[in-house]
Amino acid sequence: MKEQAEIGGTADGGLHRLTLSDEDKEIRDWFRDQMTDADLSVRVDEFGNMFGRRAGTDSDAKPVLVGSHLDSQPYGGIYDGALGVIAALELVRTLNDTEIETAHPIEIVNWTNEEGSRFQPAMQGSGVWAGAHDLEEEYAKTDVDGKVFEDELERIGYKGEEPCEPPEEYEAYLELHVEQGPYLEENEKDVGVVTGIVGFTWGAITFYGEADHSGPTPMHYRQDALVAAADVITQIRRIPSTLGERTVGTTGYIDAKPNSINIIPEEVTFTWGFRDPSDDVIDEARRRVLEEAEWAADREGLEWEYEDRMRAPAVEFADGCVDAVQTAADDLGYDSMQIFSGAGHDATHMHSICDTGMVFAVSENGKSHNESEYTSWDDCYAAASTIANAAVDLAGG
Amino acid sequence: MKEQAEIGGTADGGLHRLTLSDEDKEIRDWFRDQMTDADLSVRVDEFGNMFGRRAGTDSDAKPVLVGSHLDSQPYGGIYDGALGVIAALELVRTLNDTEIETAHPIEIVNWTNEEGSRFQPAMQGSGVWAGAHDLEEEYAKTDVDGKVFEDELERIGYKGEEPCEPPEEYEAYLELHVEQGPYLEENEKDVGVVTGIVGFTWGAITFYGEADHSGPTPMHYRQDALVAAADVITQIRRIPSTLGERTVGTTGYIDAKPNSINIIPEEVTFTWGFRDPSDDVIDEARRRVLEEAEWAADREGLEWEYEDRMRAPAVEFADGCVDAVQTAADDLGYDSMQIFSGAGHDATHMHSICDTGMVFAVSENGKSHNESEYTSWDDCYAAASTIANAAVDLAGG
Ligand SMILES: NC(=O)NCCC(=O)O
Ligand SMILES: NC(=O)NCCC(=O)O
Repeated sequence: MKEQAEIGGTADGGLHRLTLSDEDKEIRDWFRDQMTDADLSVRVDEFGNMFGRRAGTDSDAKPVLVGSHLDSQPYGGIYDGALGVIAALELVRTLNDTEIETAHPIEIVNWTNEEGSRFQPAMQGSGVWAGAHDLEEEYAKTDVDGKVFEDELERIGYKGEEPCEPPEEYEAYLELHVEQGPYLEENEKDVGVVTGIVGFTWGAITFYGEADHSGPTPMHYRQDALVAAADVITQIRRIPSTLGERTVGTTGYIDAKPNSINIIPEEVTFTWGFRDPSDDVIDEARRRVLEEAEWAADREGLEWEYEDRMRAPAVEFADGCVDAVQTAADDLGYDSMQIFSGAGHDATHMHSICDTGMVFAVSENGKSHNESEYTSWDDCYAAASTIANAAVDLAGG
Repeated sequence: MKEQAEIGGTADGGLHRLTLSDEDKEIRDWFRDQMTDADLSVRVDEFGNMFGRRAGTDSDAKPVLVGSHLDSQPYGGIYDGALGVIAALELVRTLNDTEIETAHPIEIVNWTNEEGSRFQPAMQGSGVWAGAHDLEEEYAKTDVDGKVFEDELERIGYKGEEPCEPPEEYEAYLELHVEQGPYLEENEKDVGVVTGIVGFTWGAITFYGEADHSGPTPMHYRQDALVAAADVITQIRRIPSTLGERTVGTTGYIDAKPNSINIIPEEVTFTWGFRDPSDDVIDEARRRVLEEAEWAADREGLEWEYEDRMRAPAVEFADGCVDAVQTAADDLGYDSMQIFSGAGHDATHMHSICDTGMVFAVSENGKSHNESEYTSWDDCYAAASTIANAAVDLAGG
């Protein structure tokens, strides 16, 4: 049998396991088998989210949910998401092996499409489950090849029977994830106690110009969709510096048509993404990028439109969970720091359902969404031990 | 049998007949049949250039060559190139029908890959034939899918037996083409007497940054290949305004990797193209764009490289040919103007082989490299009559 990181593994040691791809099906099959082997009772909901529950001793106690995601970025790293799911699996296996019982049930989870690369938004499965998104709207989302989310979910056999919503109240949600930023390493910490998650705005802008010959068409006759896009992309680099210390702005995707060396580009679509710990800053960044697009379209004489692809709120975690994680790290003798997450996580949506907390593992060089993403074995172990202790604490073990 | 504009014709009335595609094979078969039907002696050279000769009465007289190209841009117009080849065919058919003999042979030609969209450079077949490019180097060129020119030429069955070079001296070369710019229409002329062709520089720049997460990666940690590309693309729009009245600059092509909304772009390739009637201006534009690339790479901390894809010299046509075209237009009673071509043409290379001239047909709205390219029937007729009279004049008819 393949090891989990081999499913979708790349030649360069990374992971290419896009959501609802064949590789996603394969890793889901693997995860279901692991959960069954660990005596968990397995459920799959209608959006593909996968749950496995270990019973508690108190029939009135609400479950503690622990997990993350098994999908990856295109040519991403092997730790992003998977480490959190494996840590959750290890937690229940260890409880089984050591015959530790908890008052509350402990449930582990693999959320569908956390990455948001193939289909937007990110954190889609947890978002629908938590009621932030409408099921039918998300089913209808398409990838760049026009494939529909719901069809792809059915194709890989993971459109489950359960409604995509909490079947009952939950006690807490905990998630382990690699930091994906440089702060823990820079501060020489063993583990991160996450206090919240930045919010973000994602969208796509399309400029419509006129294809024409790049030679005999005088400059002032042109309606060049790519020049306008380039203008806005340089502003997306600049806007963060006018807003906040932690504000970031990125264009990750661009597509130009007809994309021929001697044709003036007719239609260009590109994305924006801004993040910040403050929702006001995020809204202001979105306002400014649309204003820049308006100006650029005016200058070139273009039509344009935009589409919002995501708006995740900034969240601050509940004290109870932050404290549980902090206590676990302290008790285990790890040198930790409290840190705000710059990446989005399923914990963003879980925050609206129950008390939520996260543990960060150190990311070497802060790299992720890259095949060279790396977390040392010791750092994986520190983060996994911390979340296990915090979970057992919250579950009354 | 299909009409020629149906071969590769698009739903919107344009033409998608990329060089060495299946459609290119089909149009070549059609053209060979037409030449045979017109009693021309047909030759295909090793680069796929197709010739058909109508004998002259003077066995010592050098041939007059007339033609253009049958390949198109992606989703381009139906006049660009094809009109010049059809006009050449009509010329020999008319001479046949009216039993007019000429002292010099009249030869018609379809040059391989004039467009330069699928494989660069443009005007490739005439360039090799005229000795501006090395045959083996051009055989080795690849398209974006990695397909090799020579393989594709063999695949469609048009790698001929003849060496790709002039088999003898030529008297003159004439080419009819749509203007592809707005000047004839703006000046309300019937036909254009072309006096020369702008030169151009084409190339591609690639920036190499680092893929990383668009959220937790602080702005000053980033090495964003797309931001650098956007910087240079905005400069490509600006540089012409600092150089000359007729200078134009364009980025027609861009490709970003991995092209995911939440990954900082790692590798971006994009093209430059500058044109001007002065070779000094063209060289200066190329120098400036490379300087901008150097600066942009420095700012973002990127590696970068560039590749020259084309450098066509600016040419001024021989008086003899310009006069023959002017006289033909005047004799036919057409209101004409002398004009410098802003597009490249196979005439650029023929200029180094023999006296060369061109006739321009009016382009409605100056549009081309676009499915909406249009030249009225009257304007086609005016240009075709003008080139026919000029050719017969030069061929001693
Ligand atoms: N943690 C993570 O990489 N999430 C994907 C969504 C995002 O933050 O871009
Ligand atoms: N005439 C024409 O469209 N030629 C293609 C090469 C170029 O000028 O871009």
